[in-house]
Amino acid sequence: MIPDEGLRVAIIGGGAGGMAAASRIKKLRPEWVVDVFEKTNYVSHAPCGIPFYLSGIVESVDDLCAYDVNYFRERRGINVHINSEVVEVRDGELEVVEKGERRVYEWDRLVFATGARGRGLDIGCHRVDGVVCVGSIEEAPLVREMARKHSRVVVVGSGYMGVEIADALSREKRITVIEQGSHPLPSYDQEIAEVLMRFMSQKVDLRINEQVIELRGNERVEKVVTDKNEYRADLVIVAAGVEPNVELARDFGVRLGKTGAIEVDEHLETSRKGVYAVGDCAETRNVITEKPDWIPLAAPANKMGYVAGSNIAGNEMIFPGALRCQLTSFYDMEIGKAGLSEKEALRAGFDAVSVTITSRSRASYIPGGGNITVRMVADSESRRVLGVQAIGSGVAKRIYASSALLYKKAYVEDFFFADFPFYPPKSPVWDPLVIAARNLFRKMGIS
Amino acid sequence: MIPDEGLRVAIIGGGAGGMAAASRIKKLRPEWVVDVFEKTNYVSHAPCGIPFYLSGIVESVDDLCAYDVNYFRERRGINVHINSEVVEVRDGELEVVEKGERRVYEWDRLVFATGARGRGLDIGCHRVDGVVCVGSIEEAPLVREMARKHSRVVVVGSGYMGVEIADALSREKRITVIEQGSHPLPSYDQEIAEVLMRFMSQKVDLRINEQVIELRGNERVEKVVTDKNEYRADLVIVAAGVEPNVELARDFGVRLGKTGAIEVDEHLETSRKGVYAVGDCAETRNVITEKPDWIPLAAPANKMGYVAGSNIAGNEMIFPGALRCQLTSFYDMEIGKAGLSEKEALRAGFDAVSVTITSRSRASYIPGGGNITVRMVADSESRRVLGVQAIGSGVAKRIYASSALLYKKAYVEDFFFADFPFYPPKSPVWDPLVIAARNLFRKMGIS
Repeated sequence: MIPDEGLRVAIIGGGAGGMAAASRIKKLRPEWVVDVFEKTNYVSHAPCGIPFYLSGIVESVDDLCAYDVNYFRERRGINVHINSEVVEVRDGELEVVEKGERRVYEWDRLVFATGARGRGLDIGCHRVDGVVCVGSIEEAPLVREMARKHSRVVVVGSGYMGVEIADALSREKRITVIEQGSHPLPSYDQEIAEVLMRFMSQKVDLRINEQVIELRGNERVEKVVTDKNEYRADLVIVAAGVEPNVELARDFGVRLGKTGAIEVDEHLETSRKGVYAVGDCAETRNVITEKPDWIPLAAPANKMGYVAGSNIAGNEMIFPGALRCQLTSFYDMEIGKAGLSEKEALRAGFDAVSVTITSRSRASYIPGGGNITVRMVADSESRRVLGVQAIGSGVAKRIYASSALLYKKAYVEDFFFADFPFYPPKSPVWDPLVIAARNLFRKMGIS
Repeated sequence: MIPDEGLRVAIIGGGAGGMAAASRIKKLRPEWVVDVFEKTNYVSHAPCGIPFYLSGIVESVDDLCAYDVNYFRERRGINVHINSEVVEVRDGELEVVEKGERRVYEWDRLVFATGARGRGLDIGCHRVDGVVCVGSIEEAPLVREMARKHSRVVVVGSGYMGVEIADALSREKRITVIEQGSHPLPSYDQEIAEVLMRFMSQKVDLRINEQVIELRGNERVEKVVTDKNEYRADLVIVAAGVEPNVELARDFGVRLGKTGAIEVDEHLETSRKGVYAVGDCAETRNVITEKPDWIPLAAPANKMGYVAGSNIAGNEMIFPGALRCQLTSFYDMEIGKAGLSEKEALRAGFDAVSVTITSRSRASYIPGGGNITVRMVADSESRRVLGVQAIGSGVAKRIYASSALLYKKAYVEDFFFADFPFYPPKSPVWDPLVIAARNLFRKMGIS
């Protein structure tokens, strides 16, 4: 039963997912009271912008936030509490430390939007001065200031964040990147990552298959010790992935999934009725495997907020899941992935078959155009395409198209026949995706 | 029955579709004899490259051809006959004028790949010196030479070709473009074309709602007379659309469709058994309307050649149709369309509903990024999206994605939930396609 005066909704976390949920509820139920509790000084933030702040492309951290607190308060009528840390969740109420004071708020519906944090090294992070974990925009000003002052910078990890930070900082100084796996972008297959690796090695000192075992220093960090080498360092940036912030939810008795993130159903409701979870702290459904997965990315986080907000406000909506679709770049080399790599597909139990092709990204007669390398992974039994990876020129449009086709559960034939436009300065008459599909035909013995 | 020594296949026309069919047959049936008869000096050509030749980006007309004659002869074993005009088709044989001599060739299977030609003006074309119809790369060198010599250039028509030629020539000189409709790119809706029109008017003298009624001149053209004005001209380029070359097929008794192009079934076989038609001379199925349509574009032409070639060689394959997906640009303004505009949708009998939105093409904090205007058209009954048009920055990836989704018969919800990547320098967290879909939700009363 919803009382006449409406419900009180509390949202823990003012990042992309939390603010999207809050906005949606106030749009559909303007009379309801919506409180958002945000630990930091920022709302509507996403860490994806950090590298562009470090490089100086973006001047101020405030610019990384889509909207500011006043916009949400005044224009959308949301009670945004910044510098407010929720310390305990209880049935129907929350305990919050707000500007140093303890306060209690009541709720009828609750949303966990607590996000993720940068994962530290097993050997510890933050325990020595000059070592920072990248995970939230809050730390970004400190990192930028230190990067300006110091010349020996070591980046630990080469996922998206590591690669983009390496790009940002290597324009001004020679930096070292340490990766424990056999190539940067660990979620990619070797065939694509190798193209990046060759180019990246020209710009940074890239060390693969090395594990950091110790950070040495007195007052502050002086040396990074790996299982193979030692590197002098006066700044160490740890970009070793993220992990979900689930402690509050777990302590409240909300069930976590196998991935470690908060388990939700297709309405994004958790194991406790009336309690929802969205964004980087929550699980979602992987559209390819059709199983629960943890996909901490800003685009699905926003949509999860929108869907949970709709459901809370009484407009039923199902969240269909995500593809872990991503784009990045290193200098002018674009890189992207939608769906699964071959190794991920094998791990998920598919009988995966793959092709890797390199072709022109646009008509061969247009000068200056680059190449693109595309890897397409399919299930040999059903012929469904499971994922596409690409690197080189003109990657974004192929990843957009792949994401669209994968979302609609496309087959190899669909990648061949989807009607991609021919426009000489942008695309060749046989699109690289079409060429990859044609090669898969052959490999699968279709034609 | 196929004899042991294989079949003789004759292909009339060596453009994109014809060469794709020939290549496919020789790949699957290397022992068969495949003759291609091409009227001009060029094979594997497509007129889409002409504007880039006129602008000087591409130096030689030969460069516009994907492969040359020797490649097809030596590497693929195809008997390519250039400067060979088929003058009559008879049962089992062809009469050809080859380098001035009449010869007869036998065939067991026949492919019409006769392409399209530039449509003239009702008042006549080519009858006065200094007037050229753009349609084939053959005429391109003449046009370029004349454009260099003359300063008063009038382009008649502002479809893709007219817009691209205007772009190419207006970098060096002030040209006049005359369009009989109310905006350039007649297949687009006014809402998108208006954005182009405003920008185009800064670069060329654009005259809309004007009909050319006379070309005046003595030795050569001197004046273009419309129903409203007169323009001095020493070069008139007519880019008033194309029409299919179907005379040979019609005279042979092959049935034409309502569009005027050659009727084919889903295997691309014509009304006569063993006779196929591909590319710009043939009809195809429109994936949105599911009705026969004429879509004279290079990308489907190539795939039609591939499919017809497969079927002739005995590997059954169905051509699913095309979306009339296109990209173009005018200076740095990108423009694209997949599927139907609203007016096309209404004409096709849909209960069409549309939204037009303008948003950032990438994260707002990345400086220098432009806007994109997206128009999305849907069927209000079924909620299926019927078409997407876009203009501005970052258009290509949205048209690629739209084409992919439309090909898979996507609904408005799919455009909202398809997992497009957030990457600040390339795309905002709420993609313009997602915003357009969300606006359609509202307009359709979904949420």
